[in-house]
Formats: sequence, C-alpha cells, structure tokens
Amino acid sequence: MNSEAKQILEAVKNGAMSVDDALLKLKTEPFEDIGFAKVDLHRKLRQGQAEVIYGAGKTTEQIIGIIDAMKKNGQERILITRLSPEAAELLAKSHKLDYHENAKIGFVGDIPAPDGIGAIVVATGGTSDLPVAEEAALTAEFLGNKVTRLYDVGVAGLHRLLSHKEDIMTASVIIAIAGMEGALASVIGGLSDCPVIAVPTSVGYGASFGGLSALLSMLNSCASGVSVVNIDNGFGAGYLAGMINHMEAKK
Amino acid sequence: MNSEAKQILEAVKNGAMSVDDALLKLKTEPFEDIGFAKVDLHRKLRQGQAEVIYGAGKTTEQIIGIIDAMKKNGQERILITRLSPEAAELLAKSHKLDYHENAKIGFVGDIPAPDGIGAIVVATGGTSDLPVAEEAALTAEFLGNKVTRLYDVGVAGLHRLLSHKEDIMTASVIIAIAGMEGALASVIGGLSDCPVIAVPTSVGYGASFGGLSALLSMLNSCASGVSVVNIDNGFGAGYLAGMINHMEAKK
Amino acid sequence: MNSEAKQILEAVKNGAMSVDDALLKLKTEPFEDIGFAKVDLHRKLRQGQAEVIYGAGKTTEQIIGIIDAMKKNGQERILITRLSPEAAELLAKSHKLDYHENAKIGFVGDIPAPDGIGAIVVATGGTSDLPVAEEAALTAEFLGNKVTRLYDVGVAGLHRLLSHKEDIMTASVIIAIAGMEGALASVIGGLSDCPVIAVPTSVGYGASFGGLSALLSMLNSCASGVSVVNIDNGFGAGYLAGMINHMEAKK
Amino acid sequence: MNSEAKQILEAVKNGAMSVDDALLKLKTEPFEDIGFAKVDLHRKLRQGQAEVIYGAGKTTEQIIGIIDAMKKNGQERILITRLSPEAAELLAKSHKLDYHENAKIGFVGDIPAPDGIGAIVVATGGTSDLPVAEEAALTAEFLGNKVTRLYDVGVAGLHRLLSHKEDIMTASVIIAIAGMEGALASVIGGLSDCPVIAVPTSVGYGASFGGLSALLSMLNSCASGVSVVNIDNGFGAGYLAGMINHMEAKK
Amino acid sequence: MNSEAKQILEAVKNGAMSVDDALLKLKTEPFEDIGFAKVDLHRKLRQGQAEVIYGAGKTTEQIIGIIDAMKKNGQERILITRLSPEAAELLAKSHKLDYHENAKIGFVGDIPAPDGIGAIVVATGGTSDLPVAEEAALTAEFLGNKVTRLYDVGVAGLHRLLSHKEDIMTASVIIAIAGMEGALASVIGGLSDCPVIAVPTSVGYGASFGGLSALLSMLNSCASGVSVVNIDNGFGAGYLAGMINHMEAKK
Amino acid sequence: MNSEAKQILEAVKNGAMSVDDALLKLKTEPFEDIGFAKVDLHRKLRQGQAEVIYGAGKTTEQIIGIIDAMKKNGQERILITRLSPEAAELLAKSHKLDYHENAKIGFVGDIPAPDGIGAIVVATGGTSDLPVAEEAALTAEFLGNKVTRLYDVGVAGLHRLLSHKEDIMTASVIIAIAGMEGALASVIGGLSDCPVIAVPTSVGYGASFGGLSALLSMLNSCASGVSVVNIDNGFGAGYLAGMINHMEAKK
Amino acid sequence: MNSEAKQILEAVKNGAMSVDDALLKLKTEPFEDIGFAKVDLHRKLRQGQAEVIYGAGKTTEQIIGIIDAMKKNGQERILITRLSPEAAELLAKSHKLDYHENAKIGFVGDIPAPDGIGAIVVATGGTSDLPVAEEAALTAEFLGNKVTRLYDVGVAGLHRLLSHKEDIMTASVIIAIAGMEGALASVIGGLSDCPVIAVPTSVGYGASFGGLSALLSMLNSCASGVSVVNIDNGFGAGYLAGMINHMEAKK
Amino acid sequence: MNSEAKQILEAVKNGAMSVDDALLKLKTEPFEDIGFAKVDLHRKLRQGQAEVIYGAGKTTEQIIGIIDAMKKNGQERILITRLSPEAAELLAKSHKLDYHENAKIGFVGDIPAPDGIGAIVVATGGTSDLPVAEEAALTAEFLGNKVTRLYDVGVAGLHRLLSHKEDIMTASVIIAIAGMEGALASVIGGLSDCPVIAVPTSVGYGASFGGLSALLSMLNSCASGVSVVNIDNGFGAGYLAGMINHMEAKK
Repeated sequence: MNSEAKQILEAVKNGAMSVDDALLKLKTEPFEDIGFAKVDLHRKLRQGQAEVIYGAGKTTEQIIGIIDAMKKNGQERILITRLSPEAAELLAKSHKLDYHENAKIGFVGDIPAPDGIGAIVVATGGTSDLPVAEEAALTAEFLGNKVTRLYDVGVAGLHRLLSHKEDIMTASVIIAIAGMEGALASVIGGLSDCPVIAVPTSVGYGASFGGLSALLSMLNSCASGVSVVNIDNGFGAGYLAGMINHMEAKK
Repeated sequence: MNSEAKQILEAVKNGAMSVDDALLKLKTEPFEDIGFAKVDLHRKLRQGQAEVIYGAGKTTEQIIGIIDAMKKNGQERILITRLSPEAAELLAKSHKLDYHENAKIGFVGDIPAPDGIGAIVVATGGTSDLPVAEEAALTAEFLGNKVTRLYDVGVAGLHRLLSHKEDIMTASVIIAIAGMEGALASVIGGLSDCPVIAVPTSVGYGASFGGLSALLSMLNSCASGVSVVNIDNGFGAGYLAGMINHMEAKK
Repeated sequence: MNSEAKQILEAVKNGAMSVDDALLKLKTEPFEDIGFAKVDLHRKLRQGQAEVIYGAGKTTEQIIGIIDAMKKNGQERILITRLSPEAAELLAKSHKLDYHENAKIGFVGDIPAPDGIGAIVVATGGTSDLPVAEEAALTAEFLGNKVTRLYDVGVAGLHRLLSHKEDIMTASVIIAIAGMEGALASVIGGLSDCPVIAVPTSVGYGASFGGLSALLSMLNSCASGVSVVNIDNGFGAGYLAGMINHMEAKK
Repeated sequence: MNSEAKQILEAVKNGAMSVDDALLKLKTEPFEDIGFAKVDLHRKLRQGQAEVIYGAGKTTEQIIGIIDAMKKNGQERILITRLSPEAAELLAKSHKLDYHENAKIGFVGDIPAPDGIGAIVVATGGTSDLPVAEEAALTAEFLGNKVTRLYDVGVAGLHRLLSHKEDIMTASVIIAIAGMEGALASVIGGLSDCPVIAVPTSVGYGASFGGLSALLSMLNSCASGVSVVNIDNGFGAGYLAGMINHMEAKK
Repeated sequence: MNSEAKQILEAVKNGAMSVDDALLKLKTEPFEDIGFAKVDLHRKLRQGQAEVIYGAGKTTEQIIGIIDAMKKNGQERILITRLSPEAAELLAKSHKLDYHENAKIGFVGDIPAPDGIGAIVVATGGTSDLPVAEEAALTAEFLGNKVTRLYDVGVAGLHRLLSHKEDIMTASVIIAIAGMEGALASVIGGLSDCPVIAVPTSVGYGASFGGLSALLSMLNSCASGVSVVNIDNGFGAGYLAGMINHMEAKK
Repeated sequence: MNSEAKQILEAVKNGAMSVDDALLKLKTEPFEDIGFAKVDLHRKLRQGQAEVIYGAGKTTEQIIGIIDAMKKNGQERILITRLSPEAAELLAKSHKLDYHENAKIGFVGDIPAPDGIGAIVVATGGTSDLPVAEEAALTAEFLGNKVTRLYDVGVAGLHRLLSHKEDIMTASVIIAIAGMEGALASVIGGLSDCPVIAVPTSVGYGASFGGLSALLSMLNSCASGVSVVNIDNGFGAGYLAGMINHMEAKK
Repeated sequence: MNSEAKQILEAVKNGAMSVDDALLKLKTEPFEDIGFAKVDLHRKLRQGQAEVIYGAGKTTEQIIGIIDAMKKNGQERILITRLSPEAAELLAKSHKLDYHENAKIGFVGDIPAPDGIGAIVVATGGTSDLPVAEEAALTAEFLGNKVTRLYDVGVAGLHRLLSHKEDIMTASVIIAIAGMEGALASVIGGLSDCPVIAVPTSVGYGASFGGLSALLSMLNSCASGVSVVNIDNGFGAGYLAGMINHMEAKK
Repeated sequence: MNSEAKQILEAVKNGAMSVDDALLKLKTEPFEDIGFAKVDLHRKLRQGQAEVIYGAGKTTEQIIGIIDAMKKNGQERILITRLSPEAAELLAKSHKLDYHENAKIGFVGDIPAPDGIGAIVVATGGTSDLPVAEEAALTAEFLGNKVTRLYDVGVAGLHRLLSHKEDIMTASVIIAIAGMEGALASVIGGLSDCPVIAVPTSVGYGASFGGLSALLSMLNSCASGVSVVNIDNGFGAGYLAGMINHMEAKK
C-alpha cells in the first residue's frame, strides 16, 4: 500500500480515477502490493544478497529456470539445498556452481564475509550426522555467519564435548544435531547460555524410528533456551541461527 | 577455576599446600567451581536479578524453603511457575507474592523495566490457549522484555491476524501458540522476518491427541525461522524469546 | 472495502481527507472492512439468521456476554455448542433457552423452517453415538435443514440399515456416525449416491484408542463420496452437511 | 426389482411359474436386481457417461479386459486412475487414450462440457503436491466440472493465496491439498464459505511421517465446512467435489 | 422371504394383489423379512434360549425395558454384560438376577447344562486379569459350555502352567488372557492343538500402553491356531469359544 | 514318555539300569520324549499326513534339506509357504512340486479329499487381497477342507456380498480378508452365525499405515464371533479355520 | 525329579509299582516336582531370606493372607511393593511393618547387612523421579546391597552429576532414572564402566507421552553397557542390580 | 589429572610456571586429561586388549584409517561391527581379517581365551534371529567370554527350550533374542536366576512393526531380572553380558 496504493489515491484526488474504479483496483491488486505480506523467503534475505531454492522435488530444468530468472533480476548469490550430485553436475555446465556433495548444497555466487553478533557453533553427536550438520553450517555461512564446527562430540564421550567448552560458552547461537537418543541438546543447553537450536536426525536404527526418538528427547529437554526443528532439517536450523545471530542489525 | 583454583595454585606455589593435596582438591572440588559449567538456570539469569523455581511436583514447604534460601543469598526477584492457587495462597502468607492464577505464575519482587532489542509478540490461535500464553508472556516480562499480546488470532479468521500486521512485522521475536491444527506458526512465520518460537498446546479434542497434531504441524512448518518447544511449554518459549531479545547485550 | 472504504475514497475525492491520512486509514482498518476476509463463523451463516458460540472452555459469564452483544446487534438466533447443563441452567435464568442436554446444545431463538435441497440423514452405528449424532442433527436443523434420524443401524446388524434404504437412497447428504470399527461410513457410502460425511466417535474400548480405529477406518473407506471430520465433531458434520444441502442457493 | 422382478411376478400371475419357483428365483437373483443396492461406482456416475477403473494393483491385461467389456456394454467414457506410464503405453496401442503422466490418469473417450453449480478450485500448498492435485482436477473435469487450479499457494507465503481471493470466494467447492503442516485447509476454510475438501499429501520429510502431520492438522481444522479424505487421495476429493457441485441436479 | 413373501406371491397368483402392488410391497418390506439377514445377536443364540444385552452406556431403565420386552416375547434366559453394581442392585429389585460383580455380568434365568464338544479352558497370566477372565468364563457357561479355569499361570512361572498340561492338552477351545507382555497365548498355542482365542488385557503399566503391548504380542504369536479379540473383550472370547465348542451341532 | 521312557522303566525293572542312571536319563532326555510338549506344528497335523515349512528367510538349500529329511521319515505331504518363484523353480528340479505363484505356496504330495464339518468360505474385500486369500484357501485345502472363494465382495458394493448370502449363511467357518477400512469382517460377522477369522491386509495407501487401519477396525468389530490374526497372515487363518472345521473329529 | 521321582523308580525296581503305573505317575506329576522349573520369584531369592509381594491389584486381605502363609512357612523377610498408604495402615495393625510411603514399599522383617560386590548407585534426573528411585533403592537394600543415592543430577546441570564422579566411577552397578528426555542414562553410561540399568519415568508433560520419550531415548543410548526396564519400574531395576551385584557368589 | 596435572603443579611449586599460566593450562587442557571422563569405549575395554569400531556409516577408507592408527598405538585386537561383505573384502587385502558375514562382524587379531564368571547363553526364538545372535555371541567371545548358543528355541515349541534347561539354569548371563511376539525373554526369565538381556529383533511382518511388538513385549516382561536393549542391537547385548560376566574381576 505504499507507492502503488498512493498512486491510486492521488489519481482519485486528482479526479483521474473514479471512486468505483479505485475501489475495484484496491480490491483486486495482488495482496503483496498493498504493503505488508512481503513473506517470500527471498524477501526475507536481504535484497540483492541471497536467495534460496529448495531443490528437492524439482527437476534440474526447473532449478536452472529459477536461477536464470533470479539472475536476470540482478540476484547474484543463490543457495540451492537438497541438490543431487546428478543435478549439480548438469547445473555446473551452465552456471558457476560451488557444490558440497555431503550437504547436498550448491552456491551460485560468493559467500559473504561473516558479520553477525558472534560465532554459530554447529555440534553433532556422531559422524553420521555430518550431512545434516553441513547443511546447517553452509546455510549459516551463506547468510553471513561465522561457523565453528564441533563434530562427533556425543554425550556418551563427554570429555570430547567438554574439551570444547570455550567454543560452547562463547557461542552466539548453537545448533545441536544428534540422532539416536538426542541427548546432546540437553547437555549443551545446560553448558551454554545462548539459544540452542536442536536438530534431531534420522541416524540410528531400531527404536530410533527414523528420528522420532531424538525428536521427542529434544522436545522434552529440561535445559532452558532449547527449541527444535524438524528431523534432518539442517537448512532450517542454519537459517534460524543466522537470523538470531543478526538480531543486533534489527534496530 | 577462577578465585578458588587460583588460591589453590597460590598455596602450592607458597608451599602452603602439597602437590598431592592440591591434586586431590582440584579433583574433588564441585565442578561448578572450576569455571565453566555454570549451568544452573539461576546462573543463566543475571546474578541478583532473577531466579526461577519450577513449582510442579514440589510441596509448598519445599518452595518456601527454596525462596528463603535464595533471599538469604540476596536474591530479590524470583519467578515461580506451575504454582497452584492453593500453594500461592499459603505462600502469600509469608512472602509478598504477585500471583497470576491463569498462568499459574507467581512473582516475588518487582518486574524490571524492559530493556531488550524490541517487543516480543505473544500470539494465540484461540482463547483456550491463554494460560500457556500468559505463562510465556509473564516469563518474558519477568526477564525484562516488552511483550505485546495478540490473543485469539487463529488462522480460520485470518483478518483478525492481519489487522495486527504492524505488531507482527516489527516484532523482535514472536511466540506463536496454538492447539488443534497449529497452523498459526506457519502463517506468522510467513508474515514476519524475525525468529518465531512455536508452542503447541493440548487444546483440542479427538484427533488432536493431546497436542500431537499441533506439534507435528509446527515441526513441519514450511516457513523459515520457526522452531518449536514442548507442548504447553509457555515458560520455555518465554525464556528463549527473552534470551534472543537480549542478544545485543552479548558482545 | 464496501461502504467504509468507499467513504474514505469519497473523502479523498472531496478533499476532506488527505492522501496520507487515507493511506494510513486503509492500512490500519480492520482487515474485515476491506472486503473479502469475511471469515468469522458468524458471517458465514446468513446475517440476521444464525450465529454459533463454541461453549467449551468459556465461562458462563463469557457466553452470556457474547449473547448479549449479539442480541444488541440484532442477532435473533444463536446456537451454543458444548454447553454444560450447569451453564445452561444459569443461562436459562437470563435468556429464553432451548437446551438439549444429550447433545449439549442450546438454542436462543426459533429454529427456522427447513429450506435446503433435501433431507440430511444422520445415521449412527450404535446408541452410544447419540450425543454426537444429536449435536450434528440439531446443528443442521438450526441451520434450516430437514433431518432424518437413523440411530443404531450398525453394520453388524445389516438388516436394520437396509430396512431404511429409502431414506438412504433419497438423502441429500448423509452424516454417518460410528465408533469402534467405523464401518458404517463405507457401507452407507456404497448404498447411496450423495455426499457422506463420516464422523468417528470415541465410543469403544481397548484397541479403539479413543476413536482412532474408527477414524482410520473412515479415512480408508473404499466407497466414493465419503469424507471425514474430527472424532466426535458432530457440529462440524452438521454444519458442512447444511452447507452442502444449500448448494443450490449459491448461484 | 424393476423389469426382471416384474417379469417373475407376471409369470406367477399368468401361472407360467409356480409360487415356489418364484420364491426361489427372487431369493437367489443377484441382489442388484431387486432394486436398491445400486452401489457400484459405475452406477453412481450417470449411465452411459462415465466409468472409473482404479488401476493400481491391476495388470494391463486386466485393465484392457475391463475396458473392452465396458465398451461392449456401450460405455463411451472411461477414467483410469493410478495408471503407470508403462501400462499407459501398452494401453494406447489398442485404445485411444488421453494420458496424463503427472497425475497417472488416463481417459478413454471425451471430457464432457462442464455443467455443475460453479467452479471447483483445486489449491495446493506447494509444487510437490501437483500429482495429487492433477488427479483431483482431472477427475473433476472428467465428471463434468469446471476446475480452477491454484498451485503453490502455501500459507507461508500468504500473499500468493490472497492474490487469488476472488477465485476462493466465488468457488462452488474447494479442494485444499497440502503436505507438511497442512495449514492450507484451515486458512482456505476461513476465507471461503463453500465446502472445503482437504487432501493431506505424503509430501514432506522427518516428522511429516508420510502425511500423518498434514492429516492430523486438517482433521483438527478450526475452520467450519472442512472435511478430509485419505492421504494422497486426489481421486476421492475430485469425485466428492464433483458430486457436491452437481447437487442442484438432484431434485 | 419365507412366509410373508410366499403370501404375497400367492396373492399375486390368486389375483388378490396386482403385480405393481406386489413389486412395491416386496421392495419396501423390512429387509429382515425377506429371509436372510437374521443377524441380531439375539438371533444367533438359539431362540428361546439365550439373549445378550451389552450394559455399558445404557441406563438401568433402558436395560430393564429391554429385559421386560424380551420376557414378554418368551425369552427366559438373558445375559447382561458390563453391568455396574449400582445398576445390578436396582435391577435385582424387579427381576431375579444372578450378579457376578467381579465380571460385571448378570444372568436372568438359569444356566443351561453344558453340551458342547468338550471343555473350554480359560487361562490367565495373572490375578489382575480375573475380571476379563470371568466375563469370558461366565459368558461361555451361559451359552452351555463346560469351563475349566486356570488362573495365574503366567509364563514367568512356567511350572504353574505346565502342572495343568492335561487340561490344556484335552481342551476343546482355550481362551488365553494376559496383559503386560501377553506371552501366554504363544506358550499355550505351542502346548495345545485346539483353537486358542487370545484376549489382551489392559493390565500393566508404563510401556504396556493400555494393553497395546499384549495385543501386538498376541497378534505376532508364532504359534499356529491362535487368533485375537479386542483388549479386555472377555465376552467376545467367551462367545466365540462357545460357538466353536458347538461346531458339531452344525450339520 | 512313550516307548523310550517305557524302555527305561523296563530296564530299571529288569535291573539292567540303576535307579540313578534312570533318574539322570529321564532328566536329560529331550523334553519332547516325556510326553506332553508335542507342540511342533508338524505334530499338530496328523502324522503321515501333512507338514508345513515356513519358507521366508530360509535358503532354497535349507528348504530342500528339510523336505528330504521329512520324506526320509515317511512324510508324503508337505506344504511350503512364502516360497519365492525362484526358490520354487529350483525346488521343482528335485521334487514334484505344485506351485501357486500368486499365493507363494508350494505343495509336495497330493491334496487330500476334504473331510471337515462343512465348507470354509474365504472372502476378500478387493482383488488386491488375492495373494493373502489364496494363501489361506490353499492352506485350508491342503489340510483337508472344502473351500468356497468369494473374492472382491467389499462392503462398498454390498450387493456383491449379499448375492452370495447362501454361501455365507451355510459356511462352517469364514475367513474375511480385507485391507483399507477392513469393514468386511463386521458385515460378514453380522450376516453369519459361524466363527469368522478376520485377516487384515497391507493393501491400501496413506492412512492405511501398512494394514494398521484394517487391523484396528477388525479388532473393534461390533459383530460377535469375530477374531483376528496378524496382517497378511493368510496361512494362520487357513490353518485355524481348518482346525475349527475339524472340531467334530476331536472326541 | 529328585526325591519323588527317585521313589517311583525305586518302587519300579522293587516291583512295588508296575511300569505302566510309573509311566503315568511320572507323566502327571506337577512339573515343579521333577526338578527344574523352580521359577517363582520367591525361589530366586535365597530361601529363608527374602520374598516379594507385588501389592498392586491385591486387596489388603489378600496381602495379609499371603504374608501369613509365608510366615507360617518360616519366611522372615518379606518385601511388599506398590503398597498404598491405606493398605499399609491396615497391615501395620497385624504385622510389624516398615513402610516407606514415597516408594510405596513395605518391609516385614529386617534388612540384611549388604554383602554384594560393591555399591549400587541410584541416580535421578530430577526430584520428581524420587518415588521410582526409592522403589529401586529400597528393593536393592532389601536384597542385601549397599546403595548410594545421587538424586537430582540431571544432565541440564552437568556439574551436579560431575561433582559425584567418584561415586559413578567406582559403582558396581548404576541405576539411572529419568523422565522427560532421559539423557541421564547416556551420560552416565559414558562416564562409567559398569552395567547401567536405565529406568524411564512418566515424569514430564506434553511430548513426554507418559514416559515414551525417556524410554525411546534410553533404548537408543549410544553408550555401551546400558539396558532398559519398563517405565517407572523401580523394583525391576533394583532387583536386577542386586542380582548383578551378587554375581561373584554364583560360582 | 594424573601425571600431566601433577607436572603442572610441580612446575608451579618449582616456580617453573606462573600461577596464571598454570590456571590457563589447567583450564584449557583437554578434559580427558584431568582425570575422570575416561569414557571412550576403547578405554572401557582393557587397554592393549580390545577395541571396537562401529562400521555402519563409515567408508572402508575411514575404517582402515582407524585400524592403522590403532595398530600404530599398539592395539593388537580390534572388533569391527556392521561391516559389509564388500568392505570386508577390501579390508582383507591390507589386514588379516577374520570375517563373519552373517553377523557382519570382523576381527583383527586373535580371540582371547574366555575368563569370565561362567558361560553366556545366547538364545533365539527362530532361525531368522541368527544375524543378531551372532553379533551378540561373537562380541562376547571377542571380549573373553565363553558362549553357549541355543538357536531356534522359540516359545511356541517349548520342548525345544526345555531340553536345554541345564544350559539355561547354569548360565552366568543369558541373552534372549526374539522377534515377532518376543515372549522368549519372559519364559527364559522365569526359568533362570541370572540376569537376562532381552534383544528384540525386527524379524516378523505385519503388526510386528519392525520390532516394536517384540520390544514392548520384552519391556513388559513379568519375569524379574530382565532388561532390554535396542531392536537388533546384538553388539550392545554381547558387550553388556561380557561386562556382567566379568563382575568378579572388579574388586
């Protein structure tokens, strides 16, 4: 309802548009034009800086089409998640792509220098949680955050975690990633005093039920400051962590 | 490992303590004294400012005992959650208590002036979510945050939510509280560009399965920036929101 | 965006309001005023005819307050669901109330003469499903529908159902209500050629798991034309049936 | 019990058949002949107009056999759902087939001109819901309905949905299709005043549990007029929507 | 379709009824009258011998009304299940009632002498399963079966079960009733060569989840000849056992 | 404890064995020899008549080995369930095998003439349930039962089922097999007065959850005389039905 | 098969009993008499030392009856679990009872001096787990074990746990008791090198689902040496711990 | 905090290190060096004797790398679990590997002579449980335990189990492994008086739900002395059994 709506009102004032026509126009304008529902992910990221494409369930052609359209609109930096190696290979033929196979993430454009409040710690319970962790870490880096990786620091070997206590205690935000019993989130939540984003993973077997065990465990964390995202949702955690780590820029 | 550990080392240096005695002492000191596991909730909150007692499963006598011990240690401001009206009545006989029956929260001491990054919006889908919402809101206020309440703005009546778009778009953090289908978190997540903490509630019947429906819905939110806490966990959401809203103070 | 928005535009045209003031006013008006989000249940029901209050979780005082406000606005007919006998007794002191204890439904005002496409059949598997069935039937009647009740026609005694085949085959819409194995919906769906709204109930024990068994059964119905509402949601079924039974009035 | 039963009775009257023989014959006639259980899907669709074959779990030979039998009986228009591309290719060799690979639907014969009450809107939360949506849309079109497609209008980007408010508010029936958190049904239910058929899809990962999350969310919708069909059941939704959209023809 | 249908046909033959009237009459007769759907529980039990009333969810008045109607129709023996002590006390004022409080079962009339193929063994894992066991045993006795009770012979004390091996090996049918891990059914199934009806009970705590553990265990029994009824469904097991134990009477 | 135990006792009597040696021998003999735990499936079936091998999880070599051992022991008739086509092909090279691919069942030896109480009806809801149904039917036939097949008589097309009412009402035992909503068991249970063994199948999609929906539905059947076996367990149902159908032979 | 069987064999040898009579007698003797299935809990505990009665679901009269019978048989020490305060009060009138209300455990007779391998540590995550912990601890003490209690050492405040590292590292067996996220078992499992018995408790709310969250978490523990008992099963853990702590006595 | 910490303290005493440097050094040393969190699995097993590598989710290269590093550190004996045949083949090229394909376990180095308290019995319900059983048995043997294998002794053929009663009654620890109904654990728990470790397996179909049925069954075991590990977790059971079987070595 900013410029466009103003123009309509000016036209009414000037007599260049009738009241009824204005009424109709205001009513039928795409909602996004009347000023508040700027809700696309693309919009959230700062304009001209970063866009995200969720690659799963899209053909390589569709992905390339979206990238081309974005670039035409001046978008220089694009993040593609859940991008298969095959799609990445095709994509690399037409675009300069920085592809991370483990995380299934591709970058078009350069990673910006980190500028948030502090460092985001990405910690995992085991080595099998790595793909999810890298999805989180690379997303955060792509969004301008410094990331410290603490991998394989599961609670069954507490000294591994405790030997990194400095990182944990000075982090701005921590992403705690674990499958199986998911206890990492609680232990880290108890050791730190910053927001902890818990990511259950589908790592495990038997009664882990595809990540359900870790999910329930994390939701029931008795540590304060812990919240949870969907199973294996590394992108979501990295995105949210980046958002929190840039809180100061808000005012 | 600050003052106390230093004293031990000094004593070793001075010959006032043998190496073996020092070794034993360092080994057996309560862990909290060697410097990093300052993990108690009490510690997290700034000293001398705020403490929290989880009242559920504690007798009134136990609660009073803890409060007395805290006050003796100079603690002026204490928050008690899940405090029953009966316990509150007893408690009020010996302490000046500000009790909020709906939220089952009691304050000892004064609420501080808010000083965070911005306002925390607490939004609910329906009026039945109010007790959880007040637990969140009062916790946040107790921790020094400005809180804006948007109650009964469920997605089935979208205009109610949209009429508060200014609050949503300018919030520092949003707590989205809903039972039943829990769609509020996704819609708010789409409208805002700040962290959204989703709280599923056990409000509903039939296939809501005690909050499971809302919980799953929120975990699967397709909006970015949304994370979830346990069903009915208003305190956890309020605490985390306050933590995020004070991020700037970190550096 | 009807009268009110028009007035604003007229005022702009006349110079009685500045463009900026109009912009602000249009922006801050409750959304419902700009013309499309007429989403309140109250609005859906034709104005001046019927309103619904969901009584569960509301105090009697709150319910009376809402009724008074409605009546002041000229609302003559009001439906209150999930109204406890105690609340009904209190309510009856100040308002003329037609209360149906079994269905926990109360009417203020008169039931209109039915005017839909045809009859809505409300069928139940057993006698224990009656409260849900009456909630559905009374809701439908309140909304101007003719209702035919077929109670206790569960599939284990097929002749009971088949002896009412005329009702089933000439129905406009059928509400099939059953707990336990919930097979009624499929059998009725197979016998009829009109929309069937299935309502699982929490009637049963053991492996009925509070209605889950009937719910899953109904969702998996191999009969076409069957859809499902929440467990015990008689109101929802009655409301939807009434909506479908008035389809012809749409054009 | 129409022609055939009448012939038996005539024969009894004429003495051409004994009472006992008639008794036996009436008793053993296929039930469908005595007049009420016209329950086959084929019967429901108007005779000579449309038949449906559920292709899943049938061999191509079986499908061809059924089609041949139908055509011999004068059936000109046949819909085959869940038809694999391989089966479609084979089928196309012997029959003129209009195949839609995305929806896995094939038509034999022509689509009729739409003649229902109004338009059926088929809306999806994301692009991955498209196969289910097309199954619904093509089914509805095959049954003589005008269909408006609103794809990728998920609630996390509310403006996308709101920009189509005219379609939503003027629809005869709406089919709301979504995976993940399934909030689309509630939001559309709140915006419209026509029956909404919600279709949860198995789109998602982690805690979406194969569509369970969307299913529960839709069942708990706080919007009135919403009912739910099985996960991924596009055909069921399209069929029911067509049935409702032809309500006026009933009288 | 026996006497009544015959009369219609005779009337047609005699010219006392027109073909069209006969057609209509045959079409509209209650289905039960045309000869096959004699499906009521009451019908299954041999006429004049036994009837069953499911007492749960019925008022004492309703139960008395049904009994009176039955007795007026010459029914001498009636079984009432899930009958509360309070209802039994009231009932006993007007009818001669043999009430078994533990099983919540009441008899009106005498138990017949047993006449089945052999003895039905009712075995339980523990003493807490007794109410379910007695419901099964009394039902079977009421239906004319000899019953042998083997209570508290759970598998954790195998010798208790093995000391009754003669009963188990000579039984006609065995009802195996157990909560918790429900292993009794498998062990008995392995020891016997007659049909075993397994009844899971809700006895247990924690991960027994209201009988789910025993139910799943019994469904997965690796012993042949075992089938399962609903949790706590003693009546169903007793009824089915009685049916099987009277198989010889069938020819 | 037949021949072998007798020989020991004779030896004691004759002085050929000391009491202590006899004690030891009796104590350490395989338990099966002391007379009661004749629990093997093989034993249950009458000796020299029929044996069953569960083929799943066994190599073809293992299966052939077992068959050879059986035949050496004079076993003429052997049933192999869950036998893959590949294994069957191999097996057919060395043994005369009658293989039914749909049911994945193979016979070695001839099927006996049926000799039970009456006919076993095997009914299915749809054509996709056929493999399970054939497993049940062939098992029953192999065990000497007459089997009547009623396939594709699901409740959504009730006339298909009702046209076979004679078979249903005269059956000795009925096996009701259905996936999806599993309502067939209840409807058949209501129409018949013989034991009904319900077999849920994993046929379906979405909220059928691999047969859970049908399983719960069947367990909650409101018809008497119905019991349930595991999902897809055609063999178990056929075996139990055969057992019941031979009850008369027991005395 | 000891004395009694020997007598039979002697009789056969002496000619005092025929071979056939002996055969029959050996066959029908209660199994417990032939020597191995001494499986009762009572038997497991050393004779004359300790017996256990599970009080839940038993009337006070039944409990007293069992105690009297035990005492008559010379049993001096009896443990009663799940004993309500009311039953305890009644029981105390006739027997010298040492009752622990929190644990709902009563002792008749004296606790023996501990004599196992080492100390059993009973650790809890929170204070609400205390009743379960005391049930475990008192059971272990009753069975002759030294018990060290570490209560309220949940992982969110790791220093509390770590300050007791000596107890944990020198324990013979550890019982780790926790509700909510149940992470305690993994952390303790990682710190210790002795068997850890994990007891999930039903402490928690929301997504703890009555202990399911802690149960799954513990089953998925990535620490070695951890096994799990049923939710809230303090007795089972205490009993097993005592058994392990007395392993040395075995040889 | 042993040698290294002592050296620091000595240096402080000698003046070779300042107090502040010592403070820093003590603070930043890896936690494992300050003396208590010696939690690695490797540590638990006696040094120089045995190490374990969990092969799942590791590349063959990673596994070889770890083995090389271990051997360089003097580790002679290494156990690799969940090792695929392909990886084993590669591994065997560079290391002397003893590979057990069924259990997916590989040994580097020799199995030690058994030296525990007694024999560990590994029992399975069926032959399909063999891979899990061998994982348990080989793990136990690798850790220096004598193992007795009792395979295919499921409860449906009780005599098979009972014929091995000597093994069961003299075992030091028993590992009871079963899928389907999982009753083996309870029956063995009732027959023995040593710790029983129950391992549910994913063997089964239908309502076994991937091992859930056996898991719940085992958790609800009414036998004392039974605890449970994760589904298919043969390694965990073998490891724990070995730990218990070496209890005597503790003092």
